[in-house]
Amino acid sequence: MKLFTSVHDVNDINALAAEALELKQNPYAHQHLGKNKTLGLVFLNPSLRTRMSTQKAALNLGMNVMVLNIDKEGWALELQDGAIMNGGTVEHVREAAAVMGQYVDIIGVRSFPGLKDREEDYSEAIFNKFVQYCGVAVVSLESATRHPLQSLADLVTIQELKKTARPKVVLAWAPHIKALPQAVPNSFAEWMCKADVDFTIAHPAGYELNTDFTNGATITHNLDEALTGADFVYVKNWSAYEPYGKVLPGNEDWMLNNDKLKITNDARVMHCLPVRRNLELSDEILDGPNSVVVHEAGNRVWAAQAVLKQMLEEI
Amino acid sequence: MKLFTSVHDVNDINALAAEALELKQNPYAHQHLGKNKTLGLVFLNPSLRTRMSTQKAALNLGMNVMVLNIDKEGWALELQDGAIMNGGTVEHVREAAAVMGQYVDIIGVRSFPGLKDREEDYSEAIFNKFVQYCGVAVVSLESATRHPLQSLADLVTIQELKKTARPKVVLAWAPHIKALPQAVPNSFAEWMCKADVDFTIAHPAGYELNTDFTNGATITHNLDEALTGADFVYVKNWSAYEPYGKVLPGNEDWMLNNDKLKITNDARVMHCLPVRRNLELSDEILDGPNSVVVHEAGNRVWAAQAVLKQMLEEI
Amino acid sequence: MKLFTSVHDVNDINALAAEALELKQNPYAHQHLGKNKTLGLVFLNPSLRTRMSTQKAALNLGMNVMVLNIDKEGWALELQDGAIMNGGTVEHVREAAAVMGQYVDIIGVRSFPGLKDREEDYSEAIFNKFVQYCGVAVVSLESATRHPLQSLADLVTIQELKKTARPKVVLAWAPHIKALPQAVPNSFAEWMCKADVDFTIAHPAGYELNTDFTNGATITHNLDEALTGADFVYVKNWSAYEPYGKVLPGNEDWMLNNDKLKITNDARVMHCLPVRRNLELSDEILDGPNSVVVHEAGNRVWAAQAVLKQMLEEI
Repeated sequence: MKLFTSVHDVNDINALAAEALELKQNPYAHQHLGKNKTLGLVFLNPSLRTRMSTQKAALNLGMNVMVLNIDKEGWALELQDGAIMNGGTVEHVREAAAVMGQYVDIIGVRSFPGLKDREEDYSEAIFNKFVQYCGVAVVSLESATRHPLQSLADLVTIQELKKTARPKVVLAWAPHIKALPQAVPNSFAEWMCKADVDFTIAHPAGYELNTDFTNGATITHNLDEALTGADFVYVKNWSAYEPYGKVLPGNEDWMLNNDKLKITNDARVMHCLPVRRNLELSDEILDGPNSVVVHEAGNRVWAAQAVLKQMLEEI
Repeated sequence: MKLFTSVHDVNDINALAAEALELKQNPYAHQHLGKNKTLGLVFLNPSLRTRMSTQKAALNLGMNVMVLNIDKEGWALELQDGAIMNGGTVEHVREAAAVMGQYVDIIGVRSFPGLKDREEDYSEAIFNKFVQYCGVAVVSLESATRHPLQSLADLVTIQELKKTARPKVVLAWAPHIKALPQAVPNSFAEWMCKADVDFTIAHPAGYELNTDFTNGATITHNLDEALTGADFVYVKNWSAYEPYGKVLPGNEDWMLNNDKLKITNDARVMHCLPVRRNLELSDEILDGPNSVVVHEAGNRVWAAQAVLKQMLEEI
Repeated sequence: MKLFTSVHDVNDINALAAEALELKQNPYAHQHLGKNKTLGLVFLNPSLRTRMSTQKAALNLGMNVMVLNIDKEGWALELQDGAIMNGGTVEHVREAAAVMGQYVDIIGVRSFPGLKDREEDYSEAIFNKFVQYCGVAVVSLESATRHPLQSLADLVTIQELKKTARPKVVLAWAPHIKALPQAVPNSFAEWMCKADVDFTIAHPAGYELNTDFTNGATITHNLDEALTGADFVYVKNWSAYEPYGKVLPGNEDWMLNNDKLKITNDARVMHCLPVRRNLELSDEILDGPNSVVVHEAGNRVWAAQAVLKQMLEEI
């Protein structure tokens, strides 16, 4: 694997999830692969889980890790081709990416969307330029439209905890006060559409996701209908795709609570975190027996380790 | 040892200090203990000595280290239980701590007091929530009311440099222009009260420390009296406990200088650093033969290494 | 080698460059040298190449690395001797440097000039205080007036790519909108004046460098004359030395482009990066076959590794 930016970069998602679970049983078995290999983690935005779990995954594989908060520790990046750089940007992504590729064997990049210009965000301009110019393997640490390491950890969690061969999985929109990216729901949707699950997306009218990511999913505006018989409920807020990046008024009653959980098949409740308590998810859910959000975050290590391992095997 | 947050977490402070001095002689003898173990250092506030010495201690033990400036690199933390998180905080400490506990074997946390609300600061809310929710061993990198790694390094320094079996140790308040926490003097006091020393605290009227930390100490408002015959003078500013977090007017003459040092028994001068020159301590002291502040900072490595070693032995 | 701050710290620059090229062929052959040795990288300013390449060099040698953004993660430094520290600075460089020297075996320091007070900048006050007080080996990560790791990487690049025994090397001033330090051109000049090259500096009137650095170079205000027959063109902006730190009006036509490149002997184009595209250097040059800027940045690893190796051999 040279590239891990979406589900389309993976031949067999079930095999990759299985490898992650094997690594969870035997984390240090492959340290020869990472010896004298270096992972560079480049952050244009904050990160806790991704930052720490990907570092830990690399260390488990015997790699060295270098972390760069490029906006704070490096230089303001220019993204526009042909730009006359007489403004605030100091270094073009062409040079930045190419130079980093001289120092590391694998680059991880996090770059959030601006949520202003949909076409620009969905073109994944920054991300694609890193891929184009760095010359080494690239793993997405969350791009403008996808968060594949999270989605793989989610699949791993479902495979690990499911009680039936083909569980019902529901992606349930939740309220928020800020406009959040669609990266996590887009990505979760495109992974679930390829997984051995019955997949339903529930959201209020107006929060339709880009259909490129939801092909094959059942989509409903009726949360109760979606929750009925669910084995896993994946709670997540996102802002509207049209009008792009907007928070629509109302829908506060979409917050999951124990009453709604009763409709489910004693569902495990998932969330990518960070979660705003009592806004997206109630305390009673997060502190109750059905929440698996911390366990899910723990699986981020094994998801990242499976991806890095496959990359190291081809270097 | 699963917890190192105060002197009360230590069975035998003399044995721990002795172990630190043994590690100083043989720093790399225990690298098998740290193999594939990871220390996470979480900073809510700046740090130089603690950051570098604790990293170095972990590396000496063969551990991996991940450093997180959580406020700048991660997410703004919510501390209040039951909060409806519709404001500026993005992640509750319950999730943040629990998730970090998934990625590391030992967590170090630094969290300064706000110096606004004494009850809140002295409840050690942030710190205790980390301990409660992370599920792994926790070492304090300085909390609102204590700085035990500093105090252990101070004890190590006194044990190492003392010329008599039971030296006279004086904690001497010094002037400052800013309101500083009581963490270092509190902590030094509670360690010295348990150590084989004659311990005196000297401060101007109004700077009384919380008596929970000073039980057994001689306390005086007369600096000259305190300094007489002292073997070690530990210079440190702190703000008032009552009125909480205030700098009281006057007392500029409390800065230690060579004239005052003459009263002592050629005392070694200690300070936890950073020190404001010619405000807390004069150039002549810091650049003179009696200052051991750099040596003392060097001992931070061995203090941290002794603590981490005892934690690793129980993992 | 205990100190690497300028060309004057190096006995034989050709031997050092040759060692760098040997390390490029065999990067991991000397890991015994770095075992249990620690490099501390201290940044008072942003850094991408230096930060990553020096880390990578140390890791290749088996060292541990600790990175400190001292202004953001540590404490505001006082530089003035004798200062009464009752203002905004929290720690004197005397303590900061001495304490860091307790935790690491080699310190790298980056400290840019203020470009306000020439005498202060050219005295290298911060840098020299680190050297004076830290007590360990010191490598410059770029000081107010020099960037020797860059210059060594530049020499390595020229040695590696030259087609004639004694190539013609031209340092060509380029336009910029901001006042940049003279560190890179100063340093490149003093290295080239000692190297086996014909060295010419071309800049508009008013951009004369301090002659301490340019002794032996041919200096001209005629860019075309300088470029004629050049084998390497090193493009770089700098602000005026007199009036100090100023950008003089005009000279936009000094940007190198393909037309000007035709005068050269098919010259390789170098730049230390970051480069402002279409201001300092045109897209057509940077994306064309003559640019070696990324290759040159890659050589930063081997330059740093050669220096660190010589330091480790004397520890």
